[in-house]
Amino acid sequence: MIEVRQPGPYRYTYSADHAAVARVPTGRQVRIHCVDCFENRLVDESQRYADVCQYPYLNPQTGPVYVEGAEEDDTLLVHIDDIEITRDWAVTGLVPRFGLLTGTDATAMLTGALPEVVRKVPIRDGRVWFGGLSRPLSPFMGTIGTAPKLEAINALTPSSYGGNMDCPETCAGNTLHLPVRNDGGLFFCGDGHATQGHGEIGGVACEVPVNLVCRFEVIKGQAIGWPRVTNDTHLMVIGSARPLEDATRIAATELVRWVAADYGMDATDALIWITQTLELRVGNVCDPNYSVVAAVPRAALIA
Amino acid sequence: MIEVRQPGPYRYTYSADHAAVARVPTGRQVRIHCVDCFENRLVDESQRYADVCQYPYLNPQTGPVYVEGAEEDDTLLVHIDDIEITRDWAVTGLVPRFGLLTGTDATAMLTGALPEVVRKVPIRDGRVWFGGLSRPLSPFMGTIGTAPKLEAINALTPSSYGGNMDCPETCAGNTLHLPVRNDGGLFFCGDGHATQGHGEIGGVACEVPVNLVCRFEVIKGQAIGWPRVTNDTHLMVIGSARPLEDATRIAATELVRWVAADYGMDATDALIWITQTLELRVGNVCDPNYSVVAAVPRAALIA
Amino acid sequence: MIEVRQPGPYRYTYSADHAAVARVPTGRQVRIHCVDCFENRLVDESQRYADVCQYPYLNPQTGPVYVEGAEEDDTLLVHIDDIEITRDWAVTGLVPRFGLLTGTDATAMLTGALPEVVRKVPIRDGRVWFGGLSRPLSPFMGTIGTAPKLEAINALTPSSYGGNMDCPETCAGNTLHLPVRNDGGLFFCGDGHATQGHGEIGGVACEVPVNLVCRFEVIKGQAIGWPRVTNDTHLMVIGSARPLEDATRIAATELVRWVAADYGMDATDALIWITQTLELRVGNVCDPNYSVVAAVPRAALIA
Amino acid sequence: MIEVRQPGPYRYTYSADHAAVARVPTGRQVRIHCVDCFENRLVDESQRYADVCQYPYLNPQTGPVYVEGAEEDDTLLVHIDDIEITRDWAVTGLVPRFGLLTGTDATAMLTGALPEVVRKVPIRDGRVWFGGLSRPLSPFMGTIGTAPKLEAINALTPSSYGGNMDCPETCAGNTLHLPVRNDGGLFFCGDGHATQGHGEIGGVACEVPVNLVCRFEVIKGQAIGWPRVTNDTHLMVIGSARPLEDATRIAATELVRWVAADYGMDATDALIWITQTLELRVGNVCDPNYSVVAAVPRAALIA
Repeated sequence: MIEVRQPGPYRYTYSADHAAVARVPTGRQVRIHCVDCFENRLVDESQRYADVCQYPYLNPQTGPVYVEGAEEDDTLLVHIDDIEITRDWAVTGLVPRFGLLTGTDATAMLTGALPEVVRKVPIRDGRVWFGGLSRPLSPFMGTIGTAPKLEAINALTPSSYGGNMDCPETCAGNTLHLPVRNDGGLFFCGDGHATQGHGEIGGVACEVPVNLVCRFEVIKGQAIGWPRVTNDTHLMVIGSARPLEDATRIAATELVRWVAADYGMDATDALIWITQTLELRVGNVCDPNYSVVAAVPRAALIA
Repeated sequence: MIEVRQPGPYRYTYSADHAAVARVPTGRQVRIHCVDCFENRLVDESQRYADVCQYPYLNPQTGPVYVEGAEEDDTLLVHIDDIEITRDWAVTGLVPRFGLLTGTDATAMLTGALPEVVRKVPIRDGRVWFGGLSRPLSPFMGTIGTAPKLEAINALTPSSYGGNMDCPETCAGNTLHLPVRNDGGLFFCGDGHATQGHGEIGGVACEVPVNLVCRFEVIKGQAIGWPRVTNDTHLMVIGSARPLEDATRIAATELVRWVAADYGMDATDALIWITQTLELRVGNVCDPNYSVVAAVPRAALIA
Repeated sequence: MIEVRQPGPYRYTYSADHAAVARVPTGRQVRIHCVDCFENRLVDESQRYADVCQYPYLNPQTGPVYVEGAEEDDTLLVHIDDIEITRDWAVTGLVPRFGLLTGTDATAMLTGALPEVVRKVPIRDGRVWFGGLSRPLSPFMGTIGTAPKLEAINALTPSSYGGNMDCPETCAGNTLHLPVRNDGGLFFCGDGHATQGHGEIGGVACEVPVNLVCRFEVIKGQAIGWPRVTNDTHLMVIGSARPLEDATRIAATELVRWVAADYGMDATDALIWITQTLELRVGNVCDPNYSVVAAVPRAALIA
Repeated sequence: MIEVRQPGPYRYTYSADHAAVARVPTGRQVRIHCVDCFENRLVDESQRYADVCQYPYLNPQTGPVYVEGAEEDDTLLVHIDDIEITRDWAVTGLVPRFGLLTGTDATAMLTGALPEVVRKVPIRDGRVWFGGLSRPLSPFMGTIGTAPKLEAINALTPSSYGGNMDCPETCAGNTLHLPVRNDGGLFFCGDGHATQGHGEIGGVACEVPVNLVCRFEVIKGQAIGWPRVTNDTHLMVIGSARPLEDATRIAATELVRWVAADYGMDATDALIWITQTLELRVGNVCDPNYSVVAAVPRAALIA
C-alpha cells in the first residue's frame, strides 16, 4: 500500500501547474489521505463558515498524483476499493446563499438568505445520526478528477475532467474513468461525504475527512470526453453543465455513443433502446456546474 | 369493477369543459380503457407519424371521469392496482424534431433532424424485445391527471395537475395524489408505456394501449400544489417545468414542506436532512415541460 | 371608427371557446377598450393584490374580436395606430413571489419574499412620475394575440400566438403579425403599459387602462410560426419559452428563415449576416414563458 | 503613448500566473496591439478552422498588462479612446458545432452540424461588406478583462472578471470598470470585432486584429462584483452565466444595488423604478457563459 499525504498546502484548483505530491505506478493499491471540504477546521457548531474558509480557498484537494505511464489522450481508470471515513462525526448544515433553493451568486436574487447552520452529526453503528433519525453510511468522494489542459479550475466546479461532481457513484466497488489531458494524469481528490442525497440540494452533505483506497490503471490511446463509471451492473456517464438539461444532454449523448461503439449498435438503434432502459439521476444541483448521471444496465445490452 | 370506455372522441386537452364520460364513487375498483399515444393507428412500420396524428390532436386521453365527492381544494388519491397491457406489441422509434438530443420547436436550431423511425417491438414472456435484447415489462401511465382550473392544456404538457409527466412512478402498487381544481376532480389518463427509461430521451417509449385499474379516494380539504406519489417505502413529489432545475426546485420545495408538516420537523432541519436522503430522478426531458421526481425514503423519517 | 367594448365578463384565457364580442371587417379603424391588468380595481395604495385579483382570474382581456375573412393558416396583421391611456395615473409596485429577482412558483425557493408594494404613480406632461424622477410615456399592449387551436391558455403566458409578451414593440406605429389558428383570428388584447423597461424584471410595469386603436389586415394563405413585428426600419420576431436561450433560439431561427425566404439569401448566408446585424432585446423575464425580441434593420438587407 | 505588444506567445488563459508584458501608469494613453481571434492565421477562404487553431489554444490575448497602483479589491477603469482596426478585411463564417442554433459541446445533440464556412469580408468606406450588403464599422473588444484570483480560465469564457463577453458596449467612448483581484490588475484584451450583432448567434463576428487605445484609472478600495460600463448616457452591468436568465439576474441585481447605493434610493424603490427604465440586451449566446447587458439611462435617475 502506497500512502499519499499532502506534504504542503492543499490545492484549491485542478491544474497541471501544481507539483506532483506523489508518483505512483499502476496496479498498486494507494491510500490517499484527504481532509474534509472545510479543511477539518469546522469543529464546533458555534463557528461560522466564513471563519474557517474564504473564497477562493475552498474545498481543499490532495494532489496532484502522477500516475506512471499515463499520457495525454489516454484514459485513467480509478478502481475504488474503499473510502475510509477517518472521523466519528460529520459536518452538515446550510451555507448562506449556497444550494438549490436559495438565491446564489449565479441565480442572483434580491430576496434574503436561509439561516446559516453548522451542525455536527455523529457517526456510529455504521450510520449517520440526525437527532433520532439515521441513515446508513454510503461514503464517496465528492470531488475527484484529473487536471485540465492549460486551465486552473477551482475545486468547486465539476466539468469534463471530473472535479466536484458530488455523485454518490464515485464509491467503493465502482471504477471511475477519467480523461488524461496531461502526462501522468495528475489526479486530485477530496471532499469526502459520509452520505448524501441526490442533488446535494441544501449545498452541504455529511462532510468528513476520508482516505481514498484505490488502484490506478491506464487505457492507452483511448480519449474520452467525460467521466465514466462502471461496475458489474451498469455503464454510466457523468455530465456537468448548466442548465441541468445540458448536463443531461452531455451524459446521454456520451452514453449513446459509447454503447453504439462498444456493443456494435447503430447510433439510431442505440438511442431508441437506451430511451427504454436509461437511469437518469441528478448528481448535484448546487455547484457552479450541475451534474447528471446517465446509467444503462449491462443486462439491457446483452442478448 | 366499473368499466370506463370513451364513448365519443378521445380528448387532446386537460380541461373542465369536456363532459364527463363516467361518474364513479370512491372506493370502487374502476377499469379505464385507453388507446396508445398514437390512438392505436400506427400498426405498420411503413407508416409515418404525420400520417396518423397531427398537432394538436395528439396523445388521446380517456376522460374526464367525475369522482363523486371530490370538490375544489381536495386531494384525489388514485390507488393504482394494475396497468393491463392490451396488445402483444409496442410502438417505439423516433419522431422528427422531438426528444432531448435534437433541435425541437422550443430548442429551435438550424441543424437537420434525426431519422424518423417507426418500430414495432414484440411483447412476450413478460418482456419487451428489441432484436435479441429485452427488458422486463414495467407498465405505467405516461399521462395522468385532473383538469386544470379555467384552462384547457394540451395532453403533451405536464404541469401542476399532472398530465404528461412520463414518470415510471405512476405504476401499479403506487398511489398518485392529484390536486382537485374542479368539482368531481375530472380525471384523465392515457399514454400507456410498457417500459421506458428515465427521461424518455428519444421522445418515444414502448407505447401500448392499456387499462388502468384503480380505486379513487378523496382527502377532503387538503389542497396540494403538485402531484405526489406514495407507496410503502417512499414519499415522492413530481415537479414539471423548464429549465430542468426549476422542475427540481418545485419537487424539492414541495417535498421539504410536506415532510416538515407531516413529520413535525422545522423547515431548516427538513431541508438539511432531505439533502442527505433525497432520491432525484429525471422524469421526462422531451415534453413541453420537463419532469423530476423527488423521493425520500420513509425509513429516513422514522426514528 | 368601430368601438369595441367587452359586453360581459373579461376573459382570462386565450381560447376559441369564448363567444366573439365583435365582428369587424379588415381595413376599418377599430378602438378596443381595455381595463388594466388589475381590472381597474386597484385604486388605493392600501389595497393588496390578493384583495382584487386571484389566480386564475388574472390579466383580464377584451375579446375575442372576430376579423372577417381570416381563416386558419392565414396571418393577421394588426396595424397599431394609437394606444390611448385613459387614466391619469398608473399602478406599479411588487407582487409577492413574482418577478425575476425572487423565488416564484416555478423557480421555487425556500427563501422569503420581497415586500409587497402597491404604488400609484401620476401621469402628466406626457410622463410617468416616480417621486421626482420621470420617464416619457411609451404606451404599448402588454398582452395581445389570437386564440390558440384547441387549447385555452391563461392570459399570463405568452406563446406562439402572442399573449402576455410584455414587449414594448407592440406600440403605435408598429404592425404586429399574428398566426390565425381559428376562423376569424379571434383577437384578444389587454394589459396596457404606460411605460416599462425591458424584461419587466420586478413583475409590474406602469399599469394603465388603454384603448387600442388599430386596423386589421389579413394575409391569405401565409402561416407563420411566431409573432412578428414590422415597421419602417426593422423586421422583428418575438419568441417565448423557458429557459431564456430557447426564447432566443425561437426568435432567431424564425428571423433567419424569414430573411432567407423574403430576401432570397441562402440560409447559411442569412445566418452569417444576421449574426453581424441582429438586435436582441429581452422582452419579459417574469411571465410563465420568457420573451425575446430578435430584430434586424431593413437597411442591412438592402444593397 | 505607450505601445504594448506581446513579446512572446499570446495567452489563451486569463491568469495571474503569466508574467506581465508591460507595466503602465494610470492616466497615460496606451496602445495595445492585438491579433484577431484566429491569431491572424486565417488568410484564405480555403483554410479550415482546425488547420489554424486547436482547443485549448484559442482566442489569443495580449497581456497581462500590470497597471501601477492597482491592488486587490480596487476597481480598474479602462477609458476606451479608440479601437483601431489594422486590416482591410475581416474573417467571418461558421465554426462547426459552435453558436446558438446548432448542437455544441454543452448543448450536446446527436444531430448533424451546420456547414463550416470561412469568409473574408472587405472593409472599406467605413463599412463591412457582405456581397452587396454592408454595415457601418462599430469596432469593439470581444474579449477584455482582468486576471481572476487563483484560477486560469480559458479566453473563451466570460465571467465576473470580464473575458469573452462579446458585448458591443466595450467600444470607444465607453469606460469599462473591472474588478481587481490581483495586484496590478493584470489586464488582458483581444478578439477585435469590426462589427457584430447582439448575441453573436452564429458564433463568429467580423473578426479583425485591432489596437486598443485606452487610459487606465484606479478607484481605490472599491470592490465590484461584475464588469460595469459607463458613458454620458447610461450605467451598465454585464452579467455572464448559463442559463441566460441567470446572466440577466446577475446584471440586474448588480445594477439595482449600484443605483440604490449611488443615488440614495432604497432597494425596493430602485427595483420598481429600474423595472420601468431598464434596457436589457443579449450580449452573447455562443460562449461557455452567456452575457447580458443591463443598462439604465442616467436621465431616469436625475430629477
